[in-house]
Amino acid sequence: MAASVLFHFPFDPGSRTARLALGEARVEFTETVVRPWEADCPVGDLNPSGMPPVLQTAEAGRSLTLCEPAAILGWLEDRSAEAFLMPVDPAERAETRRLVSWFDRRFNDEVNAVLLHERMEKPLLRLGPPEARALRSGREALKAHLTMLECLLTTRDALAGRRLSQADMVAAGHLSVLDYFGEITWTAYPGLRTWYMKLKSRPCFRPLLTDRFPGVAASGHYADLDF
Amino acid sequence: MAASVLFHFPFDPGSRTARLALGEARVEFTETVVRPWEADCPVGDLNPSGMPPVLQTAEAGRSLTLCEPAAILGWLEDRSAEAFLMPVDPAERAETRRLVSWFDRRFNDEVNAVLLHERMEKPLLRLGPPEARALRSGREALKAHLTMLECLLTTRDALAGRRLSQADMVAAGHLSVLDYFGEITWTAYPGLRTWYMKLKSRPCFRPLLTDRFPGVAASGHYADLDF
Repeated sequence: MAASVLFHFPFDPGSRTARLALGEARVEFTETVVRPWEADCPVGDLNPSGMPPVLQTAEAGRSLTLCEPAAILGWLEDRSAEAFLMPVDPAERAETRRLVSWFDRRFNDEVNAVLLHERMEKPLLRLGPPEARALRSGREALKAHLTMLECLLTTRDALAGRRLSQADMVAAGHLSVLDYFGEITWTAYPGLRTWYMKLKSRPCFRPLLTDRFPGVAASGHYADLDF
Repeated sequence: MAASVLFHFPFDPGSRTARLALGEARVEFTETVVRPWEADCPVGDLNPSGMPPVLQTAEAGRSLTLCEPAAILGWLEDRSAEAFLMPVDPAERAETRRLVSWFDRRFNDEVNAVLLHERMEKPLLRLGPPEARALRSGREALKAHLTMLECLLTTRDALAGRRLSQADMVAAGHLSVLDYFGEITWTAYPGLRTWYMKLKSRPCFRPLLTDRFPGVAASGHYADLDF
């Protein structure tokens, strides 16, 4: 198989989803770390949204450019002989898709656009110090989302049902960034904590645990497999 | 096959995407029109996001609840023996998924959250008159999106390539709502206009053309197949 290149920004939740899913699929790839807010970011020529992740690969002798997490997750499913990160049961498939949509819209709008904006985008883009009110509102929203995930995991091993799915990759992409910044009080969510510990100990997670954000040390337990 | 029920709000772009795709698939369903902003909306008990569309159906004797457009589109693809609204070519599949993500995130954030908020949500929720500055900003954003779609259609018959895909259903769901409110100057986008005329003349589109928004007449050409 031809070499694949993943263009990603290590603290972009969608880029992390792509790295986790590619790791689960044992797809070998080289990495190009990009800074999507800079004018000469190479992703600008590959993806009209200007955003990572983008995977450049080849199939049947033709080059193939996969833009956005959905295209990468879908391609991994398509190329697999068995169901890959997508349950077989129709109800679990529907639940996987519902949860992926939930993170794409609700979690992004209510948590990332507020909390990650204050803690990550502002220092990167030199937009000044975080605002206390925005931090508070993002943290309140995050609590509601974590409680919702905790409820799901009282009756399920994985987010959408019995087995790992795209929903777990998407959720882990998001939560791992917030965990780096120390935004998750795991003791309040024991079921979610067990789920996250299991995911974190999978080989696909290892590369993420060595990421470092300039000027911000990882939360104390970020790289601990047992926290 | 057991009867299916679609819970939808006629002017929600995602609900329209579901109606168009179900129509294309010739799935028979009864409709329950909902008002998601009201406390007793039945969708609140079916979808944690509280939002339509939701399709209640049955498969192999089990009831199946499909929440969000992604779950409905995915289910239609799963149950079809041949590729349904999803191209066979890997590059076109990736492009379909990229465009669906584009509408879910960019179009929703830059156009709907501004322009549909002013023109649709404000009257429905009695939030006062539209603000001129917001209307202007939403319209500027819409122009950029329409230009992008026009560019794609200079070399393609459908948005993601040669054949109709989920991307066309999603785009038509969004654009048809904006067209009702007279927000699209079709003469400026001849390729997009031809694409929309072709879609509009398909049987799946017919039910949408009879929708009426309280207090706002449809734009003059809204229901014309040749405009």
